[in-house]
Amino acid sequence: MPRPLIALDWGTTRARAFLISAAGEVLERRSADQGIQSVPVGGFPAAFETIAGELRRAAPDAAIVLAGMVGSRNGWIEAHYVPCPASPDAIAAAGMTATLADGTPATILPGLSCDEGAFDVMRGEETLIVGLRIDDGIACLPGTHSKWALVEHGSIVRFASFMTGEIYGLLREHSILSRLAEEPSGDDTPRGAALGLAAAARPGGLLNTAFASRSEVLAGRMPGGAVGPYLSALLVGHEIAGAQALFGRGQRVHLVADGVLAQSYGAALAAAGLEATLTTPEAAFVAGVRRLAERVAA
Amino acid sequence: MPRPLIALDWGTTRARAFLISAAGEVLERRSADQGIQSVPVGGFPAAFETIAGELRRAAPDAAIVLAGMVGSRNGWIEAHYVPCPASPDAIAAAGMTATLADGTPATILPGLSCDEGAFDVMRGEETLIVGLRIDDGIACLPGTHSKWALVEHGSIVRFASFMTGEIYGLLREHSILSRLAEEPSGDDTPRGAALGLAAAARPGGLLNTAFASRSEVLAGRMPGGAVGPYLSALLVGHEIAGAQALFGRGQRVHLVADGVLAQSYGAALAAAGLEATLTTPEAAFVAGVRRLAERVAA
Repeated sequence: MPRPLIALDWGTTRARAFLISAAGEVLERRSADQGIQSVPVGGFPAAFETIAGELRRAAPDAAIVLAGMVGSRNGWIEAHYVPCPASPDAIAAAGMTATLADGTPATILPGLSCDEGAFDVMRGEETLIVGLRIDDGIACLPGTHSKWALVEHGSIVRFASFMTGEIYGLLREHSILSRLAEEPSGDDTPRGAALGLAAAARPGGLLNTAFASRSEVLAGRMPGGAVGPYLSALLVGHEIAGAQALFGRGQRVHLVADGVLAQSYGAALAAAGLEATLTTPEAAFVAGVRRLAERVAA
Repeated sequence: MPRPLIALDWGTTRARAFLISAAGEVLERRSADQGIQSVPVGGFPAAFETIAGELRRAAPDAAIVLAGMVGSRNGWIEAHYVPCPASPDAIAAAGMTATLADGTPATILPGLSCDEGAFDVMRGEETLIVGLRIDDGIACLPGTHSKWALVEHGSIVRFASFMTGEIYGLLREHSILSRLAEEPSGDDTPRGAALGLAAAARPGGLLNTAFASRSEVLAGRMPGGAVGPYLSALLVGHEIAGAQALFGRGQRVHLVADGVLAQSYGAALAAAGLEATLTTPEAAFVAGVRRLAERVAA
Protein backbone atom coordinates (compact mmCIF):
# COMPACT_ATOMS: atom_id res chain seq x y z
CA MET A 1 0.00 0.00 0.00
CA PRO A 2 1.49 3.38 -1.02
CA ARG A 3 2.96 5.58 1.66
CA PRO A 4 3.62 9.32 1.73
CA LEU A 5 7.13 10.35 0.74
CA ILE A 6 9.65 12.80 2.17
CA ALA A 7 12.05 13.64 -0.68
CA LEU A 8 15.11 15.88 -0.64
CA ASP A 9 17.01 17.35 -3.55
CA TRP A 10 20.18 17.93 -1.52
CA GLY A 11 22.91 19.71 -3.44
CA THR A 12 26.23 21.38 -2.73
CA THR A 13 24.88 24.74 -1.60
CA ARG A 14 21.14 24.19 -1.05
CA ALA A 15 18.58 21.60 0.00
CA ARG A 16 14.95 21.43 -1.08
CA ALA A 17 12.59 19.13 0.84
CA PHE A 18 9.10 17.97 -0.11
CA LEU A 19 6.37 16.08 1.72
CA ILE A 20 4.44 14.26 -1.00
CA SER A 21 1.13 12.46 -0.38
CA ALA A 22 0.62 8.85 -1.44
CA ALA A 23 -1.42 10.27 -4.34
CA GLY A 24 1.50 12.43 -5.49
CA GLU A 25 0.43 15.83 -4.19
CA VAL A 26 3.05 18.12 -2.68
CA LEU A 27 1.72 18.84 0.83
CA GLU A 28 4.70 20.81 2.19
CA ARG A 29 7.96 22.19 0.80
CA ARG A 30 11.07 23.55 2.51
CA SER A 31 14.17 25.22 1.13
CA ALA A 32 17.36 25.58 3.17
CA ASP A 33 20.88 26.95 2.69
CA GLN A 34 22.19 23.80 4.31
CA GLY A 35 23.95 22.33 1.27
CA ILE A 36 26.30 19.41 1.82
CA GLN A 37 29.33 21.68 1.83
CA SER A 38 28.08 23.26 5.07
CA VAL A 39 27.55 19.92 6.85
CA PRO A 40 30.40 18.83 9.17
CA VAL A 41 31.68 15.24 9.23
CA GLY A 42 29.10 13.08 11.00
CA GLY A 43 26.58 15.92 10.88
CA PHE A 44 24.15 14.57 8.27
CA PRO A 45 21.53 13.09 10.66
CA ALA A 46 21.33 16.44 12.50
CA ALA A 47 21.28 18.42 9.25
CA PHE A 48 18.45 16.25 7.94
CA GLU A 49 16.48 16.90 11.12
CA THR A 50 16.98 20.66 10.68
CA ILE A 51 15.84 20.60 7.05
CA ALA A 52 13.05 18.01 7.23
CA GLY A 53 12.23 17.46 10.91
CA GLU A 54 8.87 19.22 10.63
CA LEU A 55 7.94 17.12 7.61
CA ARG A 56 8.75 13.94 9.55
CA ARG A 57 6.55 14.95 12.46
CA ALA A 58 3.75 15.70 9.96
CA ALA A 59 4.10 12.24 8.36
CA PRO A 60 5.93 9.82 10.69
CA ASP A 61 5.27 6.84 8.41
CA ALA A 62 6.62 8.46 5.22
CA ALA A 63 9.32 6.81 3.16
CA ILE A 64 12.47 8.94 2.85
CA VAL A 65 14.49 9.35 -0.36
CA LEU A 66 17.42 11.73 -0.90
CA ALA A 67 18.86 12.74 -4.30
CA GLY A 68 21.79 14.89 -5.39
CA MET A 69 25.25 15.58 -4.01
CA VAL A 70 24.24 14.04 -0.68
CA GLY A 71 25.25 10.76 -2.35
CA SER A 72 28.69 11.99 -3.40
CA ARG A 73 32.06 11.24 -1.83
CA ASN A 74 31.66 14.41 0.27
CA GLY A 75 28.06 13.61 1.18
CA TRP A 76 26.35 11.39 3.73
CA ILE A 77 27.03 8.01 2.17
CA GLU A 78 28.59 7.57 -1.27
CA ALA A 79 26.22 6.01 -3.79
CA HIS A 80 28.44 5.08 -6.73
CA TYR A 81 27.62 6.39 -10.20
CA VAL A 82 25.48 4.06 -12.30
CA PRO A 83 27.01 3.83 -15.78
CA CYS A 84 24.81 4.70 -18.78
CA PRO A 85 22.67 3.39 -20.28
CA ALA A 86 20.70 3.45 -17.02
CA SER A 87 17.04 2.50 -16.52
CA PRO A 88 14.94 3.76 -13.59
CA ASP A 89 15.16 0.22 -12.16
CA ALA A 90 18.96 0.30 -12.27
CA ILE A 91 19.08 3.73 -10.64
CA ALA A 92 16.74 2.66 -7.83
CA ALA A 93 18.64 -0.59 -7.30
CA ALA A 94 21.89 1.31 -6.72
CA GLY A 95 20.39 3.36 -3.88
CA MET A 96 22.24 3.23 -0.54
CA THR A 97 20.67 3.18 2.91
CA ALA A 98 21.52 5.87 5.46
CA THR A 99 20.22 5.82 9.03
CA LEU A 100 18.50 8.80 10.62
CA ALA A 101 19.12 9.85 14.25
CA ASP A 102 16.12 7.77 15.43
CA GLY A 103 17.18 4.67 13.49
CA THR A 104 14.81 5.13 10.52
CA PRO A 105 16.33 4.13 7.15
CA ALA A 106 16.53 6.64 4.28
CA THR A 107 17.45 5.85 0.68
CA ILE A 108 20.23 7.86 -0.98
CA LEU A 109 19.99 7.74 -4.78
CA PRO A 110 23.10 7.42 -6.98
CA GLY A 111 24.19 9.68 -9.82
CA LEU A 112 25.03 8.58 -13.36
CA SER A 113 28.25 8.39 -15.32
CA CYS A 114 28.65 8.44 -19.09
CA ASP A 115 31.75 7.51 -21.06
CA GLU A 116 30.95 8.54 -24.65
CA GLY A 117 33.70 10.70 -26.08
CA ALA A 118 34.49 12.32 -22.75
CA PHE A 119 33.74 11.06 -19.28
CA ASP A 120 30.86 12.92 -17.61
CA VAL A 121 28.82 12.64 -14.42
CA MET A 122 25.56 13.95 -12.94
CA ARG A 123 23.97 13.82 -9.48
CA GLY A 124 20.38 14.89 -8.99
CA GLU A 125 19.52 15.59 -12.62
CA GLU A 126 18.90 11.87 -13.26
CA THR A 127 15.92 12.07 -10.90
CA LEU A 128 14.41 14.99 -12.83
CA ILE A 129 14.95 13.18 -16.13
CA VAL A 130 13.21 10.06 -14.76
CA GLY A 131 10.38 12.40 -13.74
CA LEU A 132 9.80 13.40 -17.37
CA ARG A 133 8.36 9.88 -17.94
CA ILE A 134 9.54 9.84 -21.53
CA ASP A 135 10.30 6.71 -23.50
CA ASP A 136 12.30 8.42 -26.23
CA GLY A 137 13.46 12.00 -26.42
CA ILE A 138 16.03 14.55 -25.36
CA ALA A 139 16.05 16.24 -21.95
CA CYS A 140 17.56 19.71 -21.46
CA LEU A 141 18.23 20.91 -17.90
CA PRO A 142 19.69 24.45 -18.04
CA GLY A 143 21.83 25.84 -15.25
CA THR A 144 25.33 26.75 -14.13
CA HIS A 145 26.40 23.46 -15.69
CA SER A 146 23.54 22.52 -18.01
CA LYS A 147 22.85 18.84 -18.71
CA TRP A 148 21.45 17.31 -21.87
CA ALA A 149 20.45 13.65 -21.95
CA LEU A 150 19.26 11.22 -24.59
CA VAL A 151 16.49 8.85 -23.45
CA GLU A 152 15.68 5.68 -25.39
CA HIS A 153 13.18 3.02 -24.36
CA GLY A 154 12.86 4.75 -20.99
CA SER A 155 16.60 4.55 -20.18
CA ILE A 156 19.10 7.41 -20.02
CA VAL A 157 21.45 6.32 -22.81
CA ARG A 158 24.01 9.12 -22.60
CA PHE A 159 24.36 12.73 -21.53
CA ALA A 160 26.67 15.75 -21.63
CA SER A 161 27.37 18.84 -19.52
CA PHE A 162 27.77 22.42 -20.76
CA MET A 163 29.27 25.16 -18.55
CA THR A 164 26.93 27.75 -20.05
CA GLY A 165 25.71 29.44 -16.88
CA GLU A 166 29.16 29.65 -15.36
CA ILE A 167 30.76 31.16 -18.48
CA TYR A 168 27.89 33.64 -18.72
CA GLY A 169 28.67 34.77 -15.17
CA LEU A 170 32.41 35.04 -15.90
CA LEU A 171 31.84 37.11 -19.05
CA ARG A 172 29.14 39.27 -17.49
CA GLU A 173 30.97 39.97 -14.22
CA HIS A 174 34.70 39.53 -14.76
CA SER A 175 35.58 40.14 -18.43
CA ILE A 176 36.29 43.24 -20.49
CA LEU A 177 32.64 42.99 -21.59
CA SER A 178 31.41 43.59 -18.03
CA ARG A 179 32.75 47.15 -18.12
CA LEU A 180 30.38 48.23 -20.87
CA ALA A 181 27.41 46.06 -19.91
CA GLU A 182 24.54 47.93 -18.27
CA GLU A 183 21.28 46.83 -16.73
CA PRO A 184 18.79 46.27 -19.56
CA SER A 185 16.09 48.89 -19.98
CA GLY A 186 13.19 49.15 -22.44
CA ASP A 187 13.70 46.97 -25.49
CA ASP A 188 17.31 46.03 -24.63
CA THR A 189 16.48 42.46 -23.60
CA PRO A 190 14.60 41.30 -26.73
CA ARG A 191 17.05 43.21 -28.94
CA GLY A 192 20.13 41.73 -27.25
CA ALA A 193 18.61 38.24 -27.30
CA ALA A 194 17.79 38.44 -31.00
CA LEU A 195 21.30 39.67 -31.82
CA GLY A 196 22.84 36.93 -29.63
CA LEU A 197 20.84 34.14 -31.29
CA ALA A 198 21.79 35.47 -34.72
CA ALA A 199 25.45 35.65 -33.65
CA ALA A 200 25.39 32.04 -32.43
CA ALA A 201 24.83 31.00 -36.05
CA ARG A 202 27.77 33.04 -37.39
CA PRO A 203 30.89 31.17 -38.55
CA GLY A 204 33.52 32.78 -36.29
CA GLY A 205 32.57 30.76 -33.20
CA LEU A 206 32.00 31.72 -29.58
CA LEU A 207 35.41 33.36 -28.96
CA ASN A 208 34.80 35.76 -31.83
CA THR A 209 31.09 36.47 -31.39
CA ALA A 210 31.31 37.03 -27.63
CA PHE A 211 33.91 39.75 -28.20
CA ALA A 212 31.85 41.28 -31.00
CA SER A 213 29.40 42.73 -28.46
CA ARG A 214 32.17 45.04 -27.26
CA SER A 215 32.85 46.47 -30.71
CA GLU A 216 29.13 46.82 -31.41
CA VAL A 217 28.63 48.84 -28.21
CA LEU A 218 31.73 50.97 -28.78
CA ALA A 219 30.48 51.73 -32.30
CA GLY A 220 27.13 52.83 -30.89
CA ARG A 221 25.30 50.04 -32.69
CA MET A 222 24.18 48.13 -29.57
CA PRO A 223 23.09 49.64 -26.22
CA GLY A 224 25.06 48.61 -23.12
CA GLY A 225 21.88 47.13 -21.69
CA ALA A 226 21.77 44.58 -24.51
CA VAL A 227 25.19 43.06 -23.67
CA GLY A 228 23.88 40.71 -20.95
CA PRO A 229 20.92 39.42 -23.01
CA TYR A 230 23.21 39.14 -26.06
CA LEU A 231 25.76 36.99 -24.18
CA SER A 232 23.04 34.85 -22.61
CA ALA A 233 21.37 34.12 -25.95
CA LEU A 234 24.73 33.60 -27.68
CA LEU A 235 25.82 31.02 -25.09
CA VAL A 236 22.45 29.23 -25.03
CA GLY A 237 22.52 29.12 -28.83
CA HIS A 238 25.97 27.50 -28.73
CA GLU A 239 24.85 25.04 -26.07
CA ILE A 240 21.88 23.99 -28.21
CA ALA A 241 24.06 23.64 -31.32
CA GLY A 242 26.55 21.51 -29.37
CA ALA A 243 23.79 19.33 -27.96
CA GLN A 244 22.27 18.85 -31.42
CA ALA A 245 25.68 17.80 -32.73
CA LEU A 246 25.95 15.25 -29.91
CA PHE A 247 22.37 13.95 -29.77
CA GLY A 248 20.86 14.75 -33.16
CA ARG A 249 17.85 16.89 -33.83
CA GLY A 250 15.18 14.36 -34.65
CA GLN A 251 13.65 14.12 -31.21
CA ARG A 252 11.43 16.40 -29.17
CA VAL A 253 13.32 18.39 -26.50
CA HIS A 254 11.95 18.18 -22.97
CA LEU A 255 13.02 21.39 -21.26
CA VAL A 256 13.18 21.37 -17.45
CA ALA A 257 13.22 25.01 -16.35
CA ASP A 258 11.24 27.87 -14.92
CA GLY A 259 11.53 31.66 -14.78
CA VAL A 260 14.03 33.42 -17.05
CA LEU A 261 15.75 30.18 -18.05
CA ALA A 262 12.44 28.80 -19.32
CA GLN A 263 12.02 31.95 -21.39
CA SER A 264 15.55 32.16 -22.79
CA TYR A 265 15.90 28.45 -23.58
CA GLY A 266 12.36 28.30 -24.94
CA ALA A 267 13.12 31.15 -27.33
CA ALA A 268 16.48 29.67 -28.36
CA LEU A 269 14.99 26.20 -28.99
CA ALA A 270 12.24 27.76 -31.09
CA ALA A 271 14.82 29.78 -33.04
CA ALA A 272 16.71 26.53 -33.70
CA GLY A 273 13.51 25.02 -35.09
CA LEU A 274 13.24 22.43 -32.32
CA GLU A 275 9.95 21.28 -30.82
CA ALA A 276 10.01 21.59 -27.04
CA THR A 277 7.83 20.86 -24.04
CA LEU A 278 8.32 22.57 -20.68
CA THR A 279 8.31 20.99 -17.21
CA THR A 280 9.25 22.85 -14.04
CA PRO A 281 12.18 21.50 -11.99
CA GLU A 282 9.86 20.88 -9.03
CA ALA A 283 7.34 18.90 -11.07
CA ALA A 284 10.14 16.85 -12.65
CA PHE A 285 11.81 16.16 -9.31
CA VAL A 286 8.59 15.16 -7.55
CA ALA A 287 7.54 12.83 -10.37
CA GLY A 288 11.04 11.36 -10.65
CA VAL A 289 11.63 10.73 -6.98
CA ARG A 290 8.20 9.09 -6.73
CA ARG A 291 9.01 6.74 -9.62
CA LEU A 292 12.34 5.82 -8.05
CA ALA A 293 10.84 5.47 -4.54
CA GLU A 294 8.28 2.97 -5.89
CA ARG A 295 11.10 0.88 -7.30
CA VAL A 296 13.15 1.12 -4.08
CA ALA A 297 10.15 -0.15 -2.12
CA ALA A 298 9.37 -2.93 -4.59
CA MET B 1 67.59 60.56 -47.99
CA PRO B 2 66.47 58.03 -45.33
CA ARG B 3 66.55 59.08 -41.70
CA PRO B 4 66.70 56.99 -38.52
CA LEU B 5 63.33 56.30 -36.90
CA ILE B 6 62.04 56.41 -33.33
CA ALA B 7 58.97 54.17 -33.23
CA LEU B 8 56.64 53.46 -30.31
CA ASP B 9 54.09 50.69 -29.94
CA TRP B 10 52.10 52.54 -27.29
CA GLY B 11 49.25 50.49 -25.84
CA THR B 12 46.83 50.72 -22.96
CA THR B 13 49.11 49.33 -20.25
CA ARG B 14 52.61 49.34 -21.80
CA ALA B 15 54.81 51.20 -24.25
CA ARG B 16 57.68 49.79 -26.29
CA ALA B 17 60.08 52.17 -27.99
CA PHE B 18 62.68 51.46 -30.67
CA LEU B 19 65.47 53.46 -32.23
CA ILE B 20 65.86 52.07 -35.75
CA SER B 21 68.74 53.00 -38.05
CA ALA B 22 68.13 54.24 -41.59
CA ALA B 23 69.16 50.75 -42.72
CA GLY B 24 66.51 49.11 -40.54
CA GLU B 25 68.62 47.88 -37.64
CA VAL B 26 67.24 48.18 -34.09
CA LEU B 27 69.89 50.22 -32.26
CA GLU B 28 68.07 50.69 -28.94
CA ARG B 29 64.88 49.43 -27.35
CA ARG B 30 62.96 50.55 -24.27
CA SER B 31 59.93 49.07 -22.50
CA ALA B 32 57.88 51.06 -20.00
CA ASP B 33 54.78 50.55 -17.85
CA GLN B 34 53.59 53.96 -19.01
CA GLY B 35 50.56 52.80 -21.02
CA ILE B 36 48.09 55.45 -22.16
CA GLN B 37 45.77 54.69 -19.25
CA SER B 38 48.44 56.03 -16.85
CA VAL B 39 48.95 59.31 -18.77
CA PRO B 40 47.02 62.31 -17.38
CA VAL B 41 45.20 64.77 -19.65
CA GLY B 42 47.81 66.92 -21.40
CA GLY B 43 50.58 64.64 -20.19
CA PHE B 44 51.54 62.94 -23.46
CA PRO B 45 54.53 65.16 -24.38
CA ALA B 46 56.04 64.56 -20.92
CA ALA B 47 55.24 60.82 -21.03
CA PHE B 48 56.89 60.56 -24.47
CA GLU B 49 59.99 62.25 -23.06
CA THR B 50 60.10 59.75 -20.18
CA ILE B 51 59.76 56.76 -22.50
CA ALA B 52 61.86 57.90 -25.46
CA GLY B 53 63.88 60.95 -24.34
CA GLU B 54 67.15 59.01 -24.36
CA LEU B 55 66.47 57.74 -27.86
CA ARG B 56 65.83 61.30 -29.07
CA ARG B 57 69.13 62.53 -27.62
CA ALA B 58 70.87 59.61 -29.34
CA ALA B 59 69.29 60.50 -32.72
CA PRO B 60 68.03 64.10 -32.73
CA ASP B 61 67.20 63.99 -36.44
CA ALA B 62 65.12 60.80 -36.29
CA ALA B 63 61.56 60.72 -37.63
CA ILE B 64 59.01 59.80 -34.95
CA VAL B 65 56.05 57.47 -35.49
CA LEU B 66 53.65 56.19 -32.82
CA ALA B 67 51.26 53.21 -33.21
CA GLY B 68 48.60 51.63 -31.00
CA MET B 69 46.12 52.99 -28.47
CA VAL B 70 48.00 56.30 -28.37
CA GLY B 71 45.82 57.16 -31.39
CA SER B 72 42.53 56.27 -29.68
CA ARG B 73 39.94 58.62 -28.23
CA ASN B 74 41.68 58.25 -24.84
CA GLY B 75 45.15 58.75 -26.35
CA TRP B 76 47.22 61.72 -27.43
CA ILE B 77 45.36 62.68 -30.58
CA GLU B 78 42.59 60.58 -32.08
CA ALA B 79 43.49 59.07 -35.44
CA HIS B 80 40.19 57.77 -36.82
CA TYR B 81 39.89 54.13 -37.87
CA VAL B 82 40.60 53.47 -41.53
CA PRO B 83 37.87 51.19 -42.91
CA CYS B 84 38.90 47.91 -44.56
CA PRO B 85 40.03 47.12 -47.15
CA ALA B 86 43.06 49.24 -46.18
CA SER B 87 46.37 49.50 -48.03
CA PRO B 88 49.63 50.61 -46.36
CA ASP B 89 49.29 53.87 -48.30
CA ALA B 90 45.81 54.48 -46.90
CA ILE B 91 46.97 53.72 -43.34
CA ALA B 92 49.94 56.09 -43.63
CA ALA B 93 47.78 58.82 -45.19
CA ALA B 94 45.41 58.76 -42.20
CA GLY B 95 48.22 59.45 -39.72
CA MET B 96 47.78 62.49 -37.45
CA THR B 97 50.48 64.88 -36.33
CA ALA B 98 51.20 65.44 -32.63
CA THR B 99 53.70 67.98 -31.36
CA LEU B 100 56.44 67.10 -28.87
CA ALA B 101 57.43 69.42 -25.98
CA ASP B 102 60.20 70.99 -28.14
CA GLY B 103 57.90 71.52 -31.11
CA THR B 104 59.04 68.51 -33.16
CA PRO B 105 56.21 66.78 -35.06
CA ALA B 106 55.42 63.10 -34.50
CA THR B 107 53.09 60.94 -36.58
CA ILE B 108 50.32 58.99 -34.82
CA LEU B 109 49.10 56.06 -36.91
CA PRO B 110 45.39 55.14 -37.12
CA GLY B 111 43.77 51.79 -36.39
CA LEU B 112 41.48 49.85 -38.72
CA SER B 113 37.78 49.06 -38.67
CA CYS B 114 36.01 46.19 -40.38
CA ASP B 115 32.30 45.80 -40.93
CA GLU B 116 31.89 42.26 -42.26
CA GLY B 117 29.24 40.39 -40.28
CA ALA B 118 30.08 42.17 -37.04
CA PHE B 119 31.85 45.46 -36.53
CA ASP B 120 35.44 45.09 -35.31
CA VAL B 121 38.41 47.33 -34.69
CA MET B 122 42.18 47.07 -34.12
CA ARG B 123 44.90 49.53 -33.09
CA GLY B 124 48.54 48.57 -33.35
CA GLU B 125 48.09 45.16 -34.95
CA GLU B 126 47.69 46.78 -38.41
CA THR B 127 51.33 47.92 -38.16
CA LEU B 128 52.53 44.37 -37.43
CA ILE B 129 50.47 42.99 -40.31
CA VAL B 130 51.96 45.58 -42.69
CA GLY B 131 55.34 44.42 -41.40
CA LEU B 132 54.71 40.91 -42.68
CA ARG B 133 55.13 42.29 -46.24
CA ILE B 134 52.73 39.74 -47.65
CA ASP B 135 50.71 40.23 -50.81
CA ASP B 136 48.19 37.47 -50.12
CA GLY B 137 47.75 35.40 -46.97
CA ILE B 138 46.30 35.22 -43.51
CA ALA B 139 47.88 36.84 -40.46
CA CYS B 140 47.35 35.46 -36.95
CA LEU B 141 48.30 37.62 -33.97
CA PRO B 142 47.60 35.68 -30.74
CA GLY B 143 46.97 37.42 -27.44
CA THR B 144 44.39 38.41 -24.85
CA HIS B 145 42.20 39.38 -27.80
CA SER B 146 43.74 37.61 -30.79
CA LYS B 147 43.41 39.13 -34.25
CA TRP B 148 43.21 37.32 -37.58
CA ALA B 149 43.38 39.26 -40.82
CA LEU B 150 43.01 38.43 -44.50
CA VAL B 151 45.52 40.19 -46.80
CA GLU B 152 44.90 40.41 -50.56
CA HIS B 153 47.05 42.33 -53.04
CA GLY B 154 48.93 43.84 -50.09
CA SER B 155 45.80 45.32 -48.45
CA ILE B 156 44.14 44.22 -45.21
CA VAL B 157 40.77 43.15 -46.59
CA ARG B 158 39.04 42.14 -43.35
CA PHE B 159 39.83 40.89 -39.87
CA ALA B 160 38.27 39.45 -36.72
CA SER B 161 39.01 39.36 -32.98
CA PHE B 162 38.86 36.34 -30.66
CA MET B 163 38.85 36.69 -26.87
CA THR B 164 40.91 33.52 -26.48
CA GLY B 165 43.53 34.74 -24.02
CA GLU B 166 41.00 36.45 -21.79
CA ILE B 167 38.68 33.43 -21.61
CA TYR B 168 41.68 31.21 -20.87
CA GLY B 169 42.49 33.45 -17.91
CA LEU B 170 38.89 33.42 -16.67
CA LEU B 171 38.63 29.62 -16.87
CA ARG B 172 42.08 29.03 -15.42
CA GLU B 173 41.78 31.50 -12.52
CA HIS B 174 38.09 32.06 -11.74
CA SER B 175 36.04 29.01 -12.80
CA ILE B 176 35.23 25.68 -11.17
CA LEU B 177 38.10 24.28 -13.28
CA SER B 178 40.65 26.44 -11.48
CA ARG B 179 40.11 24.49 -8.26
CA LEU B 180 41.43 21.26 -9.70
CA ALA B 181 44.05 22.74 -12.01
CA GLU B 182 47.63 22.34 -10.80
CA GLU B 183 50.95 23.58 -12.08
CA PRO B 184 52.06 21.24 -14.89
CA SER B 185 54.85 18.83 -14.08
CA GLY B 186 56.62 16.23 -16.19
CA ASP B 187 54.59 15.25 -19.24
CA ASP B 188 51.46 17.16 -18.19
CA THR B 189 51.90 19.95 -20.75
CA PRO B 190 52.21 17.85 -23.94
CA ARG B 191 49.53 15.47 -22.66
CA GLY B 192 47.09 18.24 -21.80
CA ALA B 193 47.78 20.02 -25.10
CA ALA B 194 47.19 16.85 -27.13
CA LEU B 195 43.93 16.16 -25.28
CA GLY B 196 42.81 19.78 -25.73
CA LEU B 197 43.48 19.80 -29.48
CA ALA B 198 41.59 16.52 -29.84
CA ALA B 199 38.71 17.94 -27.79
CA ALA B 200 38.52 21.04 -30.00
CA ALA B 201 37.47 18.75 -32.86
CA ARG B 202 34.69 17.04 -30.86
CA PRO B 203 31.09 17.87 -31.73
CA GLY B 204 29.83 19.17 -28.36
CA GLY B 205 31.47 22.58 -28.70
CA LEU B 206 33.51 24.70 -26.34
CA LEU B 207 30.97 24.88 -23.48
CA ASN B 208 30.93 21.08 -23.30
CA THR B 209 34.59 20.28 -23.90
CA ALA B 210 35.90 22.92 -21.48
CA PHE B 211 33.85 21.33 -18.69
CA ALA B 212 34.98 17.85 -19.69
CA SER B 213 38.43 18.49 -18.19
CA ARG B 214 36.78 18.56 -14.76
CA SER B 215 35.17 15.14 -15.14
CA GLU B 216 38.36 13.69 -16.61
CA VAL B 217 40.40 14.86 -13.61
CA LEU B 218 37.77 13.73 -11.08
CA ALA B 219 37.75 10.31 -12.75
CA GLY B 220 41.53 10.09 -12.42
CA ARG B 221 41.98 10.04 -16.20
CA MET B 222 43.79 13.38 -16.51
CA PRO B 223 46.31 14.88 -14.06
CA GLY B 224 45.47 18.27 -12.53
CA GLY B 225 48.62 19.67 -14.14
CA ALA B 226 47.17 18.98 -17.59
CA VAL B 227 44.09 21.20 -17.08
CA GLY B 228 45.83 24.47 -18.01
CA PRO B 229 47.51 23.08 -21.15
CA TYR B 230 44.23 21.32 -22.07
CA LEU B 231 42.22 24.54 -21.83
CA SER B 232 44.85 26.53 -23.72
CA ALA B 233 44.98 24.05 -26.61
CA LEU B 234 41.18 23.68 -26.63
CA LEU B 235 40.67 27.43 -26.92
CA VAL B 236 43.39 27.90 -29.52
CA GLY B 237 41.89 25.03 -31.52
CA HIS B 238 38.49 26.75 -31.42
CA GLU B 239 40.04 30.07 -32.42
CA ILE B 240 41.73 28.48 -35.43
CA ALA B 241 38.53 26.69 -36.47
CA GLY B 242 36.58 29.95 -36.20
CA ALA B 243 39.19 31.83 -38.21
CA GLN B 244 39.20 29.14 -40.91
CA ALA B 245 35.41 29.41 -41.12
CA LEU B 246 35.73 33.17 -41.58
CA PHE B 247 38.78 33.37 -43.83
CA GLY B 248 39.06 29.98 -45.50
CA ARG B 249 41.94 27.58 -45.29
CA GLY B 250 43.57 27.93 -48.67
CA GLN B 251 46.21 30.46 -47.68
CA ARG B 252 49.41 30.24 -45.70
CA VAL B 253 49.07 31.50 -42.11
CA HIS B 254 51.58 34.10 -40.99
CA LEU B 255 51.87 33.72 -37.23
CA VAL B 256 53.13 36.73 -35.25
CA ALA B 257 54.21 35.40 -31.86
CA ASP B 258 57.09 34.41 -29.65
CA GLY B 259 57.61 32.30 -26.52
CA VAL B 260 54.83 29.97 -25.36
CA LEU B 261 52.27 31.47 -27.76
CA ALA B 262 54.54 30.68 -30.71
CA GLN B 263 54.75 27.11 -29.46
CA SER B 264 51.06 26.56 -28.70
CA TYR B 265 49.75 28.24 -31.85
CA GLY B 266 52.41 26.59 -33.98
CA ALA B 267 51.38 23.18 -32.68
CA ALA B 268 47.67 23.91 -33.12
CA LEU B 269 48.12 25.21 -36.67
CA ALA B 270 50.13 22.12 -37.56
CA ALA B 271 47.44 19.90 -36.00
CA ALA B 272 44.87 21.68 -38.16
CA GLY B 273 46.95 20.89 -41.24
CA LEU B 274 47.76 24.54 -41.95
CA GLU B 275 51.07 25.77 -43.30
CA ALA B 276 52.49 28.52 -41.12
CA THR B 277 55.45 30.87 -40.99
CA LEU B 278 56.59 32.55 -37.77
CA THR B 279 57.58 36.19 -37.25
CA THR B 280 58.26 37.72 -33.84
CA PRO B 281 56.12 40.70 -32.76
CA GLU B 282 59.21 42.91 -32.61
CA ALA B 283 60.34 42.02 -36.12
CA ALA B 284 56.82 42.57 -37.48
CA PHE B 285 56.43 45.91 -35.70
CA VAL B 286 59.81 47.25 -36.79
CA ALA B 287 59.26 46.24 -40.42
CA GLY B 288 55.71 47.58 -40.41
CA VAL B 289 56.44 50.92 -38.82
CA ARG B 290 59.32 51.45 -41.26
CA ARG B 291 57.05 50.74 -44.24
CA LEU B 292 54.45 53.18 -42.92
CA ALA B 293 57.05 55.83 -41.97
CA GLU B 294 58.40 55.77 -45.55
CA ARG B 295 54.91 56.48 -46.85
CA VAL B 296 54.31 59.24 -44.27
CA ALA B 297 57.54 60.94 -45.37
CA ALA B 298 56.81 60.54 -49.07
